[in-house]
Amino acid sequence: MSLIANYGSSFAQWRKACTSEWQRYIGHSFVEGLANGSLPSKAFLHYLVQDYVYLVHYSRAWALGVVKAETLAEMRSCAATVDALVNHEMALHVQICGEAGISEAQLFDAVEEDENTAYTRYVIDAGLSGDFLDLMAALAPCAFGYGEIGLNIAQDMTQSPQIKNNPYQTWIDSYSGDDFQNMCINLGKMIDDAIVYRLGEQPQKSPRWAALQKRFTRATQLEAKFWDMGLRGAD
Amino acid sequence: MSLIANYGSSFAQWRKACTSEWQRYIGHSFVEGLANGSLPSKAFLHYLVQDYVYLVHYSRAWALGVVKAETLAEMRSCAATVDALVNHEMALHVQICGEAGISEAQLFDAVEEDENTAYTRYVIDAGLSGDFLDLMAALAPCAFGYGEIGLNIAQDMTQSPQIKNNPYQTWIDSYSGDDFQNMCINLGKMIDDAIVYRLGEQPQKSPRWAALQKRFTRATQLEAKFWDMGLRGAD
Amino acid sequence: MSLIANYGSSFAQWRKACTSEWQRYIGHSFVEGLANGSLPSKAFLHYLVQDYVYLVHYSRAWALGVVKAETLAEMRSCAATVDALVNHEMALHVQICGEAGISEAQLFDAVEEDENTAYTRYVIDAGLSGDFLDLMAALAPCAFGYGEIGLNIAQDMTQSPQIKNNPYQTWIDSYSGDDFQNMCINLGKMIDDAIVYRLGEQPQKSPRWAALQKRFTRATQLEAKFWDMGLRGAD
Amino acid sequence: MSLIANYGSSFAQWRKACTSEWQRYIGHSFVEGLANGSLPSKAFLHYLVQDYVYLVHYSRAWALGVVKAETLAEMRSCAATVDALVNHEMALHVQICGEAGISEAQLFDAVEEDENTAYTRYVIDAGLSGDFLDLMAALAPCAFGYGEIGLNIAQDMTQSPQIKNNPYQTWIDSYSGDDFQNMCINLGKMIDDAIVYRLGEQPQKSPRWAALQKRFTRATQLEAKFWDMGLRGAD
Repeated sequence: MSLIANYGSSFAQWRKACTSEWQRYIGHSFVEGLANGSLPSKAFLHYLVQDYVYLVHYSRAWALGVVKAETLAEMRSCAATVDALVNHEMALHVQICGEAGISEAQLFDAVEEDENTAYTRYVIDAGLSGDFLDLMAALAPCAFGYGEIGLNIAQDMTQSPQIKNNPYQTWIDSYSGDDFQNMCINLGKMIDDAIVYRLGEQPQKSPRWAALQKRFTRATQLEAKFWDMGLRGAD
Repeated sequence: MSLIANYGSSFAQWRKACTSEWQRYIGHSFVEGLANGSLPSKAFLHYLVQDYVYLVHYSRAWALGVVKAETLAEMRSCAATVDALVNHEMALHVQICGEAGISEAQLFDAVEEDENTAYTRYVIDAGLSGDFLDLMAALAPCAFGYGEIGLNIAQDMTQSPQIKNNPYQTWIDSYSGDDFQNMCINLGKMIDDAIVYRLGEQPQKSPRWAALQKRFTRATQLEAKFWDMGLRGAD
Repeated sequence: MSLIANYGSSFAQWRKACTSEWQRYIGHSFVEGLANGSLPSKAFLHYLVQDYVYLVHYSRAWALGVVKAETLAEMRSCAATVDALVNHEMALHVQICGEAGISEAQLFDAVEEDENTAYTRYVIDAGLSGDFLDLMAALAPCAFGYGEIGLNIAQDMTQSPQIKNNPYQTWIDSYSGDDFQNMCINLGKMIDDAIVYRLGEQPQKSPRWAALQKRFTRATQLEAKFWDMGLRGAD
Repeated sequence: MSLIANYGSSFAQWRKACTSEWQRYIGHSFVEGLANGSLPSKAFLHYLVQDYVYLVHYSRAWALGVVKAETLAEMRSCAATVDALVNHEMALHVQICGEAGISEAQLFDAVEEDENTAYTRYVIDAGLSGDFLDLMAALAPCAFGYGEIGLNIAQDMTQSPQIKNNPYQTWIDSYSGDDFQNMCINLGKMIDDAIVYRLGEQPQKSPRWAALQKRFTRATQLEAKFWDMGLRGAD
């Protein structure tokens, strides 16, 4: 059974309007492999290195959020996110990769896969070409999807006979844990507020709504392809 | 008697909502000096050199419009404007300045006055921080104001005893002429369409409207200060 | 026999430093299919629609060149290119696609393939994150590669028994023709000048050179993948 | 006696190449008024409100640094700076202003003075039009100048009969204190490294050097005008 995470009103609507793309993303076989521990370690490591490269550009996109913010709350949220990503989350990747024998310099200079290029630069260009909302709609699927995946796996584990010694337990714990879940909840609030601030109480009636949905759906597709790319690491 | 130029619905509303700032801009003593020929030539030349520097950054802002456009019509309009500014209008300045003994290289490297910096970079940042509409609202006062000034002076000249041999007749003719007026009319249409495309048929009901008005009003203030700066050239 | 097009010194060096990537691009089987007329028309049409979408973002990237230019010559070159792309080259695509029953609105709204997203947004981000040279190095492979392909096919046709009634003759003629070739030559000069302007007479000794080479090589790879994507249209 | 702060090699050279502009900035009568306590409180409060508005855009400019960084060290430095500015330094302003009866919402919405607009948008545009170094050269005078001012006032106070109960002691302490001084030293190192990374061990031989100097000098001028604007608050 799949859980629908509660990360605010905009996310709920965007998610519902691209159900098939969303399912392809959060129900991907890469995710199943993480959940039951069957994912080949080569695939996970390939993903991890690419995810580090992803984080570099994802952080840049959040920094663009500071550039484009129009309220104090937006500035603070984006600035804290950039700092958390650059000065903390990237360190976690470095630690796990380090244990697998990959240095941080190697990570930073890893050859970027095309799926990574497509996704990250699409998000950054959403920020350059549009406004704060365009950027947020393109950034949302990453945070909210990982949050929902974390919740789902954690729930399955309480309901099913436990998978012992899942090598990906640390990964699962970090995304199902309170820190990440609270971040998603706060992000959902900030996005809802940002939308009301610009489009009013009935944003769905604005022509802008369809444009934001398009951004969210496209980024969701590109997330699913990121998992495809991860699986290629096992070839 | 002052004429209200007909450059579309958005302009009409923006203009009306900042009447005092708009009057300070289009009714500035620099403009009166152009109209009756009494403007000191040192002030005009100072203005002209700064206006060339302005055109460099104004062209950059219009180019940012191409980066941020979301429809073919918007792209075409902005691309044609950039080309007209860079490859034609700047040449006119070069010609007039050349007759006054100022070379094009000198123009490009002229020391930029603070008023120029404030205005042009404000417009460019409107584009970086906001969307296409934020950029257009900040770009609008320059084009529409010069259009209205051109119309007003030309009308006064048909109603009053003609000022003979006004040294600024070429300047007046270029902004009251059909080419510039048609450009303003087409720009007004493009902006009206761009607003409906994003905010619907009643854009004034969107919270975005106040933000766009703020951009327009601020750019209008900065236009008036550009005339102040021009007058300083006669000191 | 393959010809090396003469589009200036920087291009010559960048090209030489990524020979295998460059050959994979300009010697792609899609290109061979264009040259001998064997390319399935479905593949060509798929390519053409995606190339139109590409042109939208390629024009945006050139417009970013105007935003980032530091000399008059750079501004003029970029502004003229934007205008040529948006107000002329896109019209050629519209015409050919129109004959195949695809309207311009369909073109503008075509679903963008991932290879297209990756390439175009990579180029635009090169401009956002770097300076004018980073942007030019990422833009260069498209123009120069098409120029070299055009030259090569045209030369082969003069040396081999002529392929009669090649359905892609119009495409070949447009890139081997004087207009496009002269554009490439002028672009090569502008890029050479832009490099000397910023990095001096021995730019290869600057650490920036390796960064520019990396941009050129990456964009060349993404060009080859664009042909891969075109071939998928025949599936 | 004036002290030359030791914030690295690039700063030392940039500072020396614009000695008169630099002196007008750090030796401004506004600064003297802070040092001896004679500055009218109305001027200080006017400055403080504008400085809050400044911090909004200064933070945005540092966030653009994250977008444009090319090394991990650059990303980390810029991300930490953005977070420190947005989530800490702005709070200090809020506290001081709050004690003077000005709310944070009032601060965020304060009418921005033209000098503020010119300076902050100039810096942001340096980042949009150029590369990471252009941005850093435009950002440098603010941090390094306040650091040097803090050091100078603190040194004068140890050498001269102490000014008792200077109402600006908190301001002086915060910029002469170890936290701010260490930040300046680390920033100086980061900028020196960033320059070597891109321009090599002899950056002064690159044509880029003159462009960076121009950015630094212009931002220094705009800093002095910011003090002018502060003094207007006492009128």
